[in-house]
Amino acid sequence: MTTSTLSKVSEQLCFGGKQIRFTHTSTALSCDMQFSVFLPPQAETQAVPALYWLSGLTCTDENFSAKAGAQRVAAELGIALIMPDTSPRGDAVPDDADGAYDFGLGAGFYVNATREPFAKHYRMYEYIVNELPQLIEAALPLSDKRAISGHSMGGHGALVIGLRNPQRYSSISAFSPICNPVNCPWGIKAFSGYLGDDKGQWQQYDASLLLSSAEKPLPLLVDQGTADSFYPEQLRTDSLIAAAKQSAAPVEIRLQAGYDHSYYFIASFIEQHLRFHARYLCS
Amino acid sequence: MTTSTLSKVSEQLCFGGKQIRFTHTSTALSCDMQFSVFLPPQAETQAVPALYWLSGLTCTDENFSAKAGAQRVAAELGIALIMPDTSPRGDAVPDDADGAYDFGLGAGFYVNATREPFAKHYRMYEYIVNELPQLIEAALPLSDKRAISGHSMGGHGALVIGLRNPQRYSSISAFSPICNPVNCPWGIKAFSGYLGDDKGQWQQYDASLLLSSAEKPLPLLVDQGTADSFYPEQLRTDSLIAAAKQSAAPVEIRLQAGYDHSYYFIASFIEQHLRFHARYLCS
Repeated sequence: MTTSTLSKVSEQLCFGGKQIRFTHTSTALSCDMQFSVFLPPQAETQAVPALYWLSGLTCTDENFSAKAGAQRVAAELGIALIMPDTSPRGDAVPDDADGAYDFGLGAGFYVNATREPFAKHYRMYEYIVNELPQLIEAALPLSDKRAISGHSMGGHGALVIGLRNPQRYSSISAFSPICNPVNCPWGIKAFSGYLGDDKGQWQQYDASLLLSSAEKPLPLLVDQGTADSFYPEQLRTDSLIAAAKQSAAPVEIRLQAGYDHSYYFIASFIEQHLRFHARYLCS
Repeated sequence: MTTSTLSKVSEQLCFGGKQIRFTHTSTALSCDMQFSVFLPPQAETQAVPALYWLSGLTCTDENFSAKAGAQRVAAELGIALIMPDTSPRGDAVPDDADGAYDFGLGAGFYVNATREPFAKHYRMYEYIVNELPQLIEAALPLSDKRAISGHSMGGHGALVIGLRNPQRYSSISAFSPICNPVNCPWGIKAFSGYLGDDKGQWQQYDASLLLSSAEKPLPLLVDQGTADSFYPEQLRTDSLIAAAKQSAAPVEIRLQAGYDHSYYFIASFIEQHLRFHARYLCS
């Protein structure tokens, strides 16, 4: 395996910390990738824990960076923010045949694709769980303490990756996650395309099914707006609530009256999520 | 004069308040305009004071709305945020002959143009000072207490409008303002195009010249990043500092080491600006 090298694209001061964009060649995804990192001021003198943020359909590393307002509290708490892209990128990477927003570029769904022509590049699960942490923990002042969060498709990714890897993360949260993708239009399209017909594979990427059977579930916080236009049909929060009732996991799922699917919703509650994660990351 | 009517384009819950986008037909600008408002939760039961935010070159009402993270503190303090566009808009509005970013659409420079073909539409000074406040104070739960702030070209606009209308505002602030437009490339291009050769008109839109001669200057706070790529040539902060020394005005101009021209800079200090304005708006 070749050593992946980070190249800095930009660095900007923000709340006394550093908002940095990197590019590198990903082995897992067989393409060049960009991601953003916020290093809090504390990283000048010590290794800091990291919150991974997985974004939703159509997003890149820039949406959460620019719109969530998370750097303020991350700087206070001494937590790095890691913001990867949402799919492999580049001219060589196959896209949705019709260019739809909900499959292909910008819509990797955090799976390891097994179906052609997607299996070579669409391995976002491997990228997020293994390659990216190895890379940045070697290159940046980060400890091995990690938490994971995300929005919509990225909320699905955070729940699935956190539930399947409790030894790698200390806590999980999500905004407006796709909770039960095997039972919603977005998920059925994505899993059919990336994984084919093998429902056994599908189940490994469904947060509601994973939570029901999790042996060592992590502390978990979910916020869902009731004015979200994708709620309930695409998001299926009801399935996650039912799974939480069957689980011994310390799960809190909150319905936030009147909030929608946007970053105005995320900005309103990201401080609470950061303080939730800090209880486990910084203890 | 016809009564301008507000139409709501969107409304989203944010920090318990309402982030709203309106469209209306502007008499001052002879075109349809969009603007955004954040109403804090306190506006449900009382008229609240307002901070006007004037954005910079290429921006619309959406940049500050999405990227500054100002709603959190505005919701706490009970201050409405008023975010207008940066120029007249529409197919009938003349643009820069070469489509440059620093003149014409997205670059109104907050003047009342007197030179053709711009004089009919490019009247952002009149729009911000008179038409927009009249319109929204009649239609929304706003008091007549106003403060004004902005960024870059919008920092220039905030300084000029606040210094020329001390009876209409209680305080002024700016991030990275164009402080002395009669002496910088952006300003010379804009004033030549909108105002022609009459330097007497130019002087009415130059913050450094206005501050030197202001009879009743308002409390004023300016933040300027030292890593700003437009500093000092375009921004000429030195001129404003020199004018402040000649003035009796309560002016604070802060050089913030290492910060650039971006919204990461604005986000880092917007809370301090809001609390500065609240001292005068909410007393």
